[in-house]
Amino acid sequence: MPPAAQLLPTHQRKIVALGGGHGLFASLSALRLLTDHLTAVVTVADDGGSSGRLRDDFHVLPPGDLRMALAALCDDSEWGHTWRDVLQHRFAGSGELQGHSLGNLMIVSIWELLGDTVGGLELVGRLLGARGRVLPMASEPLEIVAEIRGHDPDRPDETVVVHGQHRVASSPGVVSSIGIVPTCPQPCVEALDAVLEADWVVLGPGSWFTSVMPHLLVPDLADALVATTARRLLILNLEVATDETRDFRAEDHLASFAANAPGLRLDAVVADPSVVDDPETLRAAAAEVGAELVIAPVVARARPGVHDPLRLAAALRDVIAN
Amino acid sequence: MPPAAQLLPTHQRKIVALGGGHGLFASLSALRLLTDHLTAVVTVADDGGSSGRLRDDFHVLPPGDLRMALAALCDDSEWGHTWRDVLQHRFAGSGELQGHSLGNLMIVSIWELLGDTVGGLELVGRLLGARGRVLPMASEPLEIVAEIRGHDPDRPDETVVVHGQHRVASSPGVVSSIGIVPTCPQPCVEALDAVLEADWVVLGPGSWFTSVMPHLLVPDLADALVATTARRLLILNLEVATDETRDFRAEDHLASFAANAPGLRLDAVVADPSVVDDPETLRAAAAEVGAELVIAPVVARARPGVHDPLRLAAALRDVIAN
Repeated sequence: MPPAAQLLPTHQRKIVALGGGHGLFASLSALRLLTDHLTAVVTVADDGGSSGRLRDDFHVLPPGDLRMALAALCDDSEWGHTWRDVLQHRFAGSGELQGHSLGNLMIVSIWELLGDTVGGLELVGRLLGARGRVLPMASEPLEIVAEIRGHDPDRPDETVVVHGQHRVASSPGVVSSIGIVPTCPQPCVEALDAVLEADWVVLGPGSWFTSVMPHLLVPDLADALVATTARRLLILNLEVATDETRDFRAEDHLASFAANAPGLRLDAVVADPSVVDDPETLRAAAAEVGAELVIAPVVARARPGVHDPLRLAAALRDVIAN
Repeated sequence: MPPAAQLLPTHQRKIVALGGGHGLFASLSALRLLTDHLTAVVTVADDGGSSGRLRDDFHVLPPGDLRMALAALCDDSEWGHTWRDVLQHRFAGSGELQGHSLGNLMIVSIWELLGDTVGGLELVGRLLGARGRVLPMASEPLEIVAEIRGHDPDRPDETVVVHGQHRVASSPGVVSSIGIVPTCPQPCVEALDAVLEADWVVLGPGSWFTSVMPHLLVPDLADALVATTARRLLILNLEVATDETRDFRAEDHLASFAANAPGLRLDAVVADPSVVDDPETLRAAAAEVGAELVIAPVVARARPGVHDPLRLAAALRDVIAN
């Protein structure tokens, strides 16, 4: 007999999506079409741009990835779209506000006012009419630390330790391992509870080492991901070889996943046909982490490299409704 | 027979309140308790602080007085109060955001996004659940220009021309005349229409030369104030002698009003007993501009110098319901 959760209609399934940036925006844009019980658990390691400046000036979580997740959850109404656009608006020019997005400033203001990270994000969500909750993956800002080979292009064989998400993500070298500082950050209890109570947990897509892997390095969150009775799904990137993952093929992501989260098993891996060189190799790599491989067209027709929310929703529904 | 408007219940009367800053905040806080048809017409001459920086950097109307008016119109609900506090929140610290209020940044973002001053203010009003509309008194930023005697404390008898609301408002001298640049600014059509269609127009309280008088110097707005069939009411300040109005008594405000708006008649002047030295002198000064003097206790019990919203509402209702 299937577990009770599987008897629920899809829109009643509790789904938790982990990630950050544009990748999480893509998974949330699809998942919000499927369920009324969606929670985003978002990376808090950004140290570049507007988020980095606010993090330094106000000693708060970097708000940018949280803001992007909130924007992805906007209802398809005039109200939702208008406030989404307002939140995402970035100040131009060359003045003191240049590069700040209004949503980042709003989130930091509300944090200062309420003194409550989770409550503040909930309030912005209510403004937007967001179809889900947004939570941070830890309750304190994190620093990404990576060992990178060839970080200095003049010394392609030398491996050095690089600190900071922005420097790691823009390094010309190849990431050989990744960590976070502090190594054992204060968790977000609500995020742990969401993972433990979920029916499905969705990882990816997104910048592999700076948006997808960091969650697995937060010990309490990794423990919850192992302990949960939820099924676990990984959405592979549409661009497998990026600055962060030079020379990666689709199956290399699964090997990297296994290396970074040795105790964690997956139930499904969703891949667009365009990233599959050899289905059998990828199927075997998925099986290594316990997962069934689902090959489905999820790319946006006019925008290569971007997931189509409706196609991705269709593919995820076929997996989740099973 | 009374005009048709007087047959309407008070909450259906169309009321327009003119002013800026804390004074307009006070009149709006009272008037929103009386009518569902309230419009604020707000000064746009501020050049100090957050407003001044935004005005310079983005070539927009200074948003601060508009934001204050929106905050005053907030519904007494958890939603209204929460978003009012968010809008009014000022960034502390010593960084690039220091002193900016989030509401100012939000208004400027929305203007950049919509390219529509009036529509943008309406959108913020909808967020707040504002009980009324907020409009600018002109469609372009203005500069206050004043002749001030004793602006330089070392030359107390010399009169000089001082440019800019912030410098005028903080001058140690005595304002002898006031003007705006440009002298004939582009009007806000919606504000003119509101004045022309109003049942009552309310001026004051507020910084006399920088929040109350400037409206009378915008030619199209002054013409509308003369042409309207609305009745006109002036709320006198609780502190009659301020930096801007050194040695002023209550009746000097009425003389100054007559000098700055020779063609404009008033129907009522509301004064707290504390500012009335001699009732007959003040009554005669009110009669000079066509107005009946209403002496009513409108000061907040615990905060001298601040109008009590409920007492002011009671006094205004007694006038307006007549």
